[in-house]
Amino acid sequence: MSDRVLLKHGAGGRAMRALVEEVFVRDALDGLPAGAVGLAAMDDGAAIPLGDGRWLVVTTDSHVISPIFFPGGDIGRLAISGTVNDLAMMGATKVLALTCAVILEEGFSRAELERVQASIRATCREAAAPIVTGDTKVMGRGEIDGIVLNTTGVAITDRVVRDSGLRPGDRIVVTGTLGDHGLAVLSARHSLGLEGDLRSDVAPIGSLIAHLLARHGDDVTAMKDPTRGGLASALAEMAQKGGVGVVLDQLALPVTDEVRAAAELLGIDPLVVANEGKAVMGVRPEVADAVVAWLREHPLGRSAAIVGTATSERPGSLILDTGFGRRLVSELEGEPLPRIC
Amino acid sequence: MSDRVLLKHGAGGRAMRALVEEVFVRDALDGLPAGAVGLAAMDDGAAIPLGDGRWLVVTTDSHVISPIFFPGGDIGRLAISGTVNDLAMMGATKVLALTCAVILEEGFSRAELERVQASIRATCREAAAPIVTGDTKVMGRGEIDGIVLNTTGVAITDRVVRDSGLRPGDRIVVTGTLGDHGLAVLSARHSLGLEGDLRSDVAPIGSLIAHLLARHGDDVTAMKDPTRGGLASALAEMAQKGGVGVVLDQLALPVTDEVRAAAELLGIDPLVVANEGKAVMGVRPEVADAVVAWLREHPLGRSAAIVGTATSERPGSLILDTGFGRRLVSELEGEPLPRIC
Repeated sequence: MSDRVLLKHGAGGRAMRALVEEVFVRDALDGLPAGAVGLAAMDDGAAIPLGDGRWLVVTTDSHVISPIFFPGGDIGRLAISGTVNDLAMMGATKVLALTCAVILEEGFSRAELERVQASIRATCREAAAPIVTGDTKVMGRGEIDGIVLNTTGVAITDRVVRDSGLRPGDRIVVTGTLGDHGLAVLSARHSLGLEGDLRSDVAPIGSLIAHLLARHGDDVTAMKDPTRGGLASALAEMAQKGGVGVVLDQLALPVTDEVRAAAELLGIDPLVVANEGKAVMGVRPEVADAVVAWLREHPLGRSAAIVGTATSERPGSLILDTGFGRRLVSELEGEPLPRIC
Repeated sequence: MSDRVLLKHGAGGRAMRALVEEVFVRDALDGLPAGAVGLAAMDDGAAIPLGDGRWLVVTTDSHVISPIFFPGGDIGRLAISGTVNDLAMMGATKVLALTCAVILEEGFSRAELERVQASIRATCREAAAPIVTGDTKVMGRGEIDGIVLNTTGVAITDRVVRDSGLRPGDRIVVTGTLGDHGLAVLSARHSLGLEGDLRSDVAPIGSLIAHLLARHGDDVTAMKDPTRGGLASALAEMAQKGGVGVVLDQLALPVTDEVRAAAELLGIDPLVVANEGKAVMGVRPEVADAVVAWLREHPLGRSAAIVGTATSERPGSLILDTGFGRRLVSELEGEPLPRIC
């Protein structure tokens, strides 16, 4: 165990989960009503029963992305989308309130701040999610890199979806293409000249998830958004929590030609980089085709696909079926790219 | 209007309020039910009616204090107390859920992180406030100074207290001594050798406010915690929002000998530096003595005092009665000390 915090501890993989478990979850005050989903669950958010059949869902995220403007989005759109999506992953698609806390570096451009704020406003409207309170801090030059946003979301829902509910036989469905955000940011950060084609998928997908759950609420067994650490980390975590194996069909994974080309050029697997407008879920096998067809009727679900199956073999493992054979996918220690979200 | 963000824009005074109004509040999506206290109110938090007579109260704060350990507290205790206290200032003394998002600098000491976390845990227990979800990010060396915490709090209450309710004739009550936090941090930051006597007052005061409201809930007309910008900024804001003048009796202000000595040495007025375990409120004049006596029965209210009066003269102004005469106190542009909380 390192005596210093390393970049991998913030990268969404095994190292981060270990740090969180060892430092933040250990001995935490519980004090929640029975049945609540609290810190120890390490789900996309918390869910607290209100005693009348409804649940209060809460989630929080800090956003430290660099660069703050990238093809397809910016830190403001990312912050609102990330929080709205974490609520949606818990089944809460109607946002009651968002908070937005801003930390700025002394000397930060007022024009860039206005641009970020305009994007926040536009994304709030798109997601029908009002910011109700905020906080503003300024640190000295060199004490923080530009701007950091924290957003917290609060919602009330009748039904909670967990990330731990996968059962053997469930089909694994993704709502769209993979790797777009991570490769777009990487390309922008290093000026690789791929920006013309590569765009982040960052978007609030609460409306897609509401559309899904309205018809298939009883058919979705588990859900998570494959952000930091990518689809591989999200599915590895879901497999461990659900006590199932997950076999992923590589040929079925929706990846754009642009992402595939950039990934090959850079030697980075689209499976392990962040997405910011996608969900991965388990669905009952007999309705999997219907779920995909239904997702595709929504503009944010056009590229939805069945990409794998949960099994009772090798519980806790993620296995990639390449079409030529199967290999175990180790969960990453961390994502290859820091400050991706 | 500056085209760059300056330190004063995060300091709790007039400059910060202007930035927040011009950038964050302008054109914000409302979308809240009628009667809600939203972003535009710029109160200590938001309050959303749940439709059954109860209110959901939400508040958020980022904590960027330097140094992270100071006499009387640390960034962890500060984060939990700050959020619990903002909820309490809205009348919500029973915390349903806290979120805690941590941003760390690569290389941050694991031992210091454990020490901060132990303090968070202890303060959560003291405040009976559970952390239900969190987030961990790591930025590179030199991209952030050590550690930043964001905490958001959620509570449900039957009664909301605003910061805008002062009426002419109300007496102004503070729950304890002033200036302790700001001067303790200043002393620690600059190694002034005053640390032996000066200690921050940082504490969660939800239990004190619950004690107060249990007996005097109908007698408190307005409430706020005098954090960044100190008592002067909090009262100037309350005077403006309430459309009243406030006359402050300098000789009645509870200030310890240690704070007074340090303030004189440094040429800093205890009225304009942050407190982190205090409240200032308006109370109906006929019960003011009873309110102070009742506050003093609680361990966190031992030094409660009546310190002034709201008047119909000079609405929006804060006037200091020095005992020798009266002078107008201008609201500060910013607090003299950055990164105080």
